[in-house]
Amino acid sequence: MNAAPHPLTLHEDRLFPSDPTQRAIARRLYAQVASLPIVSPHGHTDPSWWADDAPFANATELLLVPDHYLFRMLYSQGIGLDALGIPRADGSRAEVDPRAAWRLFARNFHLFRGTPSSMWLNHVFHEVFGLRLRLDDGSADLYYDTIADALQTAAFRPRALFERFNIEVIATTESPLDPLAHHQAIRDSGWGGRVITAYRPDPVVDPEHEQFPSALQRFGELTGENVHDWDGYLRAHRQRRAFFAAMGATSTDHGHPSCTTADLPPAQARALFAKIVAGQFTPAEAELFRGQVLTEMAAMSLDDGLVMQIHPGCFRNHNRGLFERYGRDKGADIPLVTEYVHALKPLLDRFGNEPTFRLILFTLDESTYARELAPLAGHWPCLFLGPAWWFHDAPEGMWRFREQTLGTAGFYNTIGFNDDTRAFLSIPARHDVARRIDCAVLAKLVSEHRIDEDEASEVATDLAYRLPKEAYRL
Amino acid sequence: MNAAPHPLTLHEDRLFPSDPTQRAIARRLYAQVASLPIVSPHGHTDPSWWADDAPFANATELLLVPDHYLFRMLYSQGIGLDALGIPRADGSRAEVDPRAAWRLFARNFHLFRGTPSSMWLNHVFHEVFGLRLRLDDGSADLYYDTIADALQTAAFRPRALFERFNIEVIATTESPLDPLAHHQAIRDSGWGGRVITAYRPDPVVDPEHEQFPSALQRFGELTGENVHDWDGYLRAHRQRRAFFAAMGATSTDHGHPSCTTADLPPAQARALFAKIVAGQFTPAEAELFRGQVLTEMAAMSLDDGLVMQIHPGCFRNHNRGLFERYGRDKGADIPLVTEYVHALKPLLDRFGNEPTFRLILFTLDESTYARELAPLAGHWPCLFLGPAWWFHDAPEGMWRFREQTLGTAGFYNTIGFNDDTRAFLSIPARHDVARRIDCAVLAKLVSEHRIDEDEASEVATDLAYRLPKEAYRL
Amino acid sequence: MNAAPHPLTLHEDRLFPSDPTQRAIARRLYAQVASLPIVSPHGHTDPSWWADDAPFANATELLLVPDHYLFRMLYSQGIGLDALGIPRADGSRAEVDPRAAWRLFARNFHLFRGTPSSMWLNHVFHEVFGLRLRLDDGSADLYYDTIADALQTAAFRPRALFERFNIEVIATTESPLDPLAHHQAIRDSGWGGRVITAYRPDPVVDPEHEQFPSALQRFGELTGENVHDWDGYLRAHRQRRAFFAAMGATSTDHGHPSCTTADLPPAQARALFAKIVAGQFTPAEAELFRGQVLTEMAAMSLDDGLVMQIHPGCFRNHNRGLFERYGRDKGADIPLVTEYVHALKPLLDRFGNEPTFRLILFTLDESTYARELAPLAGHWPCLFLGPAWWFHDAPEGMWRFREQTLGTAGFYNTIGFNDDTRAFLSIPARHDVARRIDCAVLAKLVSEHRIDEDEASEVATDLAYRLPKEAYRL
Repeated sequence: MNAAPHPLTLHEDRLFPSDPTQRAIARRLYAQVASLPIVSPHGHTDPSWWADDAPFANATELLLVPDHYLFRMLYSQGIGLDALGIPRADGSRAEVDPRAAWRLFARNFHLFRGTPSSMWLNHVFHEVFGLRLRLDDGSADLYYDTIADALQTAAFRPRALFERFNIEVIATTESPLDPLAHHQAIRDSGWGGRVITAYRPDPVVDPEHEQFPSALQRFGELTGENVHDWDGYLRAHRQRRAFFAAMGATSTDHGHPSCTTADLPPAQARALFAKIVAGQFTPAEAELFRGQVLTEMAAMSLDDGLVMQIHPGCFRNHNRGLFERYGRDKGADIPLVTEYVHALKPLLDRFGNEPTFRLILFTLDESTYARELAPLAGHWPCLFLGPAWWFHDAPEGMWRFREQTLGTAGFYNTIGFNDDTRAFLSIPARHDVARRIDCAVLAKLVSEHRIDEDEASEVATDLAYRLPKEAYRL
Repeated sequence: MNAAPHPLTLHEDRLFPSDPTQRAIARRLYAQVASLPIVSPHGHTDPSWWADDAPFANATELLLVPDHYLFRMLYSQGIGLDALGIPRADGSRAEVDPRAAWRLFARNFHLFRGTPSSMWLNHVFHEVFGLRLRLDDGSADLYYDTIADALQTAAFRPRALFERFNIEVIATTESPLDPLAHHQAIRDSGWGGRVITAYRPDPVVDPEHEQFPSALQRFGELTGENVHDWDGYLRAHRQRRAFFAAMGATSTDHGHPSCTTADLPPAQARALFAKIVAGQFTPAEAELFRGQVLTEMAAMSLDDGLVMQIHPGCFRNHNRGLFERYGRDKGADIPLVTEYVHALKPLLDRFGNEPTFRLILFTLDESTYARELAPLAGHWPCLFLGPAWWFHDAPEGMWRFREQTLGTAGFYNTIGFNDDTRAFLSIPARHDVARRIDCAVLAKLVSEHRIDEDEASEVATDLAYRLPKEAYRL
Repeated sequence: MNAAPHPLTLHEDRLFPSDPTQRAIARRLYAQVASLPIVSPHGHTDPSWWADDAPFANATELLLVPDHYLFRMLYSQGIGLDALGIPRADGSRAEVDPRAAWRLFARNFHLFRGTPSSMWLNHVFHEVFGLRLRLDDGSADLYYDTIADALQTAAFRPRALFERFNIEVIATTESPLDPLAHHQAIRDSGWGGRVITAYRPDPVVDPEHEQFPSALQRFGELTGENVHDWDGYLRAHRQRRAFFAAMGATSTDHGHPSCTTADLPPAQARALFAKIVAGQFTPAEAELFRGQVLTEMAAMSLDDGLVMQIHPGCFRNHNRGLFERYGRDKGADIPLVTEYVHALKPLLDRFGNEPTFRLILFTLDESTYARELAPLAGHWPCLFLGPAWWFHDAPEGMWRFREQTLGTAGFYNTIGFNDDTRAFLSIPARHDVARRIDCAVLAKLVSEHRIDEDEASEVATDLAYRLPKEAYRL
């Protein structure tokens, strides 16, 4: 249906309100932040890209296969993952010509109209690859060939793109079991790009993860601690956190089903851990254990200064059949109702007023923005709000985030943008969207005479650059 | 207070943003969809209207008495239902001059300022009856007489209006116990209007409905099955579904208190049913039973191709006193918190990846749009989102629906508009509002350079016409 | 960072949409309501101000120390309450120069950018004190001195400000244990300002309040009733309600953790009360007791005509450490998920259809606006919706309130604005914001041709003046 060629444009005023007053202000604000360096303190890129600096393969491998935003939408319209060449849980993969997969994607690109994926991709197509026709059935091969040709050139190697994208610092996320060999290789290489890690201990914290027993085993081997004993387990965390910090980490990241925290007396914590390592626990005990570990992590943050992040509230792998065939992270994670006020109280009662403690909260349940998160962040000195996240990382989601947190938390209890992505090429596009939306939000405030333009200008720069650096101690 | 006569106008740009850029785009988009035929796949009109083609009585009987949106608002301001001539549960009715009831309504029409009811009614007044003064105390009699005169003419008979409204197809909703005599009469009449039914089995599915035992009894008589046995009960459903499909039905509709589904082993389902038919069940068992039946309905949909719809989350008959006197559907239904992620998992685990299965979800709990429904519909191939429904079928509600589902579900996991009404004359008004708002939403996207206008144009047509036909297999 | 002086302006079009069409309409509507008298039926000002008419002390004592909106934000950014001179729970207070505290506040005033606090304060600075430079580090002393000078003049005494502010009536809130001596003194003084009380019985209703036993004791002494017996307890309430009504009260106010109501048979209520007074109760019994008292209060309202208000859904004193040191109301209250549909049913089943009963509902959980509150208020004749409250008393919160309640409850099941404040000087600013936002909302409706401008004009006046008077029987 998209056979006729259509130009691909990237309008300089995209995402700005059409009202001329607001647009003019937004333009002026954006001009001040557009070219600021990218600070990316939270994401899931692969450090081997910069360690090895090997060329990317082709459009499908680079843009489609790793991006669950894309194939979840295609799957929702009846397109099977095998037809896109998505790897299966057992490591096998349908034999699919990557060009055929790309054509299938192109033919269905209209499904993404109005979604952030189409904005990000069009930005990549236009700015990174210089494409000037819209992606559709008719342009699929042009795209595939253009991208393939570019990827063979030096300018499209990971380190060159990192520099071209003006990335000041990027954090990846690793398990405590990761030896951080890629990060070491980057450091050893003499290349100047700043790629740091973040400590994400979920595999050794969540007893309901299918690989928890083996991960715990490995955790012990790696640290030389008796991790089947509560005190040894905590010491192992401290040791790995120190190693991660030495490799540049400034933060930890915790992706739990809820925001539950706990502060058990030591004897109870010890007894609970004994059940956990014995595999003799109820779901409620698993939940309590995860909550206790969060509080222990806070205690360690007081000592080592790592900024803590909690990303709660997702039902992982909602599609059992798909999970069994293709494994985790295949676009079948669904947000849940999430409660923060009671959930965080044990941790906050213990550490909430400590001047050096910092905890960044995220949510997939927007009903908590104005009701719980902004009031919490607008009171507790340790709490800051992460940006609109994952399913809400879209222009509308960003507007809702600002409009629902501004009154109570202001701008200065928020931390600017996280791209949270493994889609490397989309990083400039994502930061650009965030900067444009923050400028649009500020332009509306200025146009309604709620703040002066010089104040808006300062806030725009703070959100784009200063606050993320400060929040993550970068 | 409204004694001075005011003109009634229906502005050609109504509901479009006032920003000139957006308005111009919205106008162009709307021009392409304004006169498309009406596809009404879900509603509650009375098939006897088209079977009998008898004239409607008067303004009060036609517009006020059947419309719980109207008398709930009047009741909320202290106007009793008897004064409006609303029938009581026992079939009696206060002796009220319909003209006096109409005057009472007219005197209070200011209560509806800004509500969708006033928009719909003003559309009907202006377009259907040619009225050019606003409804108020002073114009009440003019309205009453004008409408009464019109209703006596051939042009205002149900079939004539159906044709004038350019309705391509309309679905009504019937209980499995309904003999579908009116639908048969329409077919036998030779008239060309397409009026189909939809299978709504709630009376024989909800054990907590006060008439469940007698309905079940009748279900057995009608089908010749032993419906007090689980297998016979399921066979009876299959038989009636086949009959409904033969009478044009392409969908089933399920109005449950929650979205709970269940997938019990056959022996457990059988044992549960035994308790249900014995009337020996707890509320939790009633809930489980309704959830099990939903999964059975999905199984049947795989065989007969009927599209499944779930409308969950309403506390019915919240006003006990009013219910006892006036019965059901008197404007006292109140939405509830509704959960989808856990609730749907049993059904989805069994049928969610079946290519021929289609399940359309509705909600009265908007907090689920971005959190649960868009992520579910943006992953599962069987799931589609119904439009903003009932209390949310208003311009603001439609904007929220689009702004909260677009990022994750896009446009193409939604199904266009349902009028869901028993107010026949308002059908063109309701579809017009939906088309205007979708064009306004698209115009905003175009004005902010997020999609091109040719794409918006295609989406507008898809939402107004193509998607509802495809979604309901019409 | 704000060293350069910046002008402080108060734009005449502030808070109006920048779109020229909407702005022009909003201006015209606002011109009709801008100077209407202030009706303030719900707030927490101190009646001693008008009883004594003593001058206020200085900027810090007047504007900063009593305003938990301000010091909660400062605290959230690491500024201790001692540095601001906030009194401690034991009555002591850090020795802080009020000028130094003011400078600290001024230096951090950028934290409030975009929040309602900055709007309210800038209005006070500009309109009440005639300041024309923005508050920052450089202007802190100018502010402090200007305000100190003004406060020594007769024009800045509480009664003079009351008159200057054009307050027609203001309600304070008192405990049943309050002798209302200040209200008596105001009446005895011959001054014409109308200052009334409201009956807020929480201290003798909430068994989980730390001072409940002593409050109950005092309740008995004050009324001469045996308040440890259920019937005596209820008689004591009736007696104090009558006294409050005699002192001008037209309403009661109930700040409960949830909206739970109960309607127990008398014997069960009596037995429950016996547990409560014995201090032998579970949290669930405390909740049930509070719910039972709400229903008893409704019964009394039928007799004495006091309008009932419920403000539910706040976790009080979320910061244990801060509470222990500084006591209640220190900005550490956090909203909770709040349910209304099941919670209100017992009370509504008993009194919901009584023509003289009136119950005004508030919420801190905006997800209930469209889902529960608007449908409830759009049906039950006794129910009305209070305005966007507390954390939601901001331009964005007011827009959400209107956009999420309008479709189902209209304008006429809402009651106009409450300032709900103890910050006396901010009262005109707060009402001004509410009037501007309601005019902006109406202007949008007019610009989109949904209501006519004469209708909008009537609604604007109703919301600003008529509805609050009627709702509170003033």
